[in-house]
Amino acid sequence: MIRLRSFALSAFCIMAIATCGSAHAADKVKSAIDAANRIFLEAYAKGDAATVASVYATDAVVMPPGAPPAKGRTAIQKFWQGAMDSGVGNISLHTGQVGSSGTLAYEQGEFALDVRGKDGTTKHLVGKYIVVWKRTREGQWQLYRDIWNESPK
Amino acid sequence: MIRLRSFALSAFCIMAIATCGSAHAADKVKSAIDAANRIFLEAYAKGDAATVASVYATDAVVMPPGAPPAKGRTAIQKFWQGAMDSGVGNISLHTGQVGSSGTLAYEQGEFALDVRGKDGTTKHLVGKYIVVWKRTREGQWQLYRDIWNESPK
Repeated sequence: MIRLRSFALSAFCIMAIATCGSAHAADKVKSAIDAANRIFLEAYAKGDAATVASVYATDAVVMPPGAPPAKGRTAIQKFWQGAMDSGVGNISLHTGQVGSSGTLAYEQGEFALDVRGKDGTTKHLVGKYIVVWKRTREGQWQLYRDIWNESPK
Repeated sequence: MIRLRSFALSAFCIMAIATCGSAHAADKVKSAIDAANRIFLEAYAKGDAATVASVYATDAVVMPPGAPPAKGRTAIQKFWQGAMDSGVGNISLHTGQVGSSGTLAYEQGEFALDVRGKDGTTKHLVGKYIVVWKRTREGQWQLYRDIWNESPK
């Protein structure tokens, strides 16, 4: 009886540690993603495309609607600079879901942004996105694949 | 000297095994993705939306451009049935890149499809996609998040 109790307790402890460890890991990934997204948004608002590009992996790919993919930080910086120059601003991101396994994570979210036209009008767009995140050898999470599309209004 | 050689040999073997193991794992994931995509395309061509939905995880989300996300197999089946009914056909997929870690994988690819209008005209669309794949406890890889957008012509 004591042995059975001891076994049950051990099993419970292993499960508890595994569950807590995994929840803790998920929280850590979510925090890292939130921090990187904050850097992205603050840099974008300042018009600093180089810092925006710096949160992406060096071999990252941005896949925008209606445009060819931007591969690597130089192309990614150019893409976001182009977005800034063409009047895209007031970007907000809402992370809906994050999941991770080892060195890969995905983020499912929603965005909103304004496009200021040259005629002074502002168009408000909303959409959804998936970002595949990759953990570097140094333990840093970086945007690796970034794709989005528009949602219905 | 012999010790150093032996150490170097051991280090080489460990690296070789790790590299081969990881390459083998990547091949296995790629094969599983290819097989699931074949089922998807063959079922789609036959107008069998239930089988199309069956290659997705039960808690998968399809995130189409200009439409709200379809969550879960019932909604996903309905979405693809709607695409079939509205004249979307001749779908082809080209997997460009696959990466995986543990129970998560991503697939970056390109698609092409035709939209047959009611007036008899056919519009050819090309685009790019990211699929986040998830491995079940039974070892099966399933589409988990599926998002795409149009590419410039």
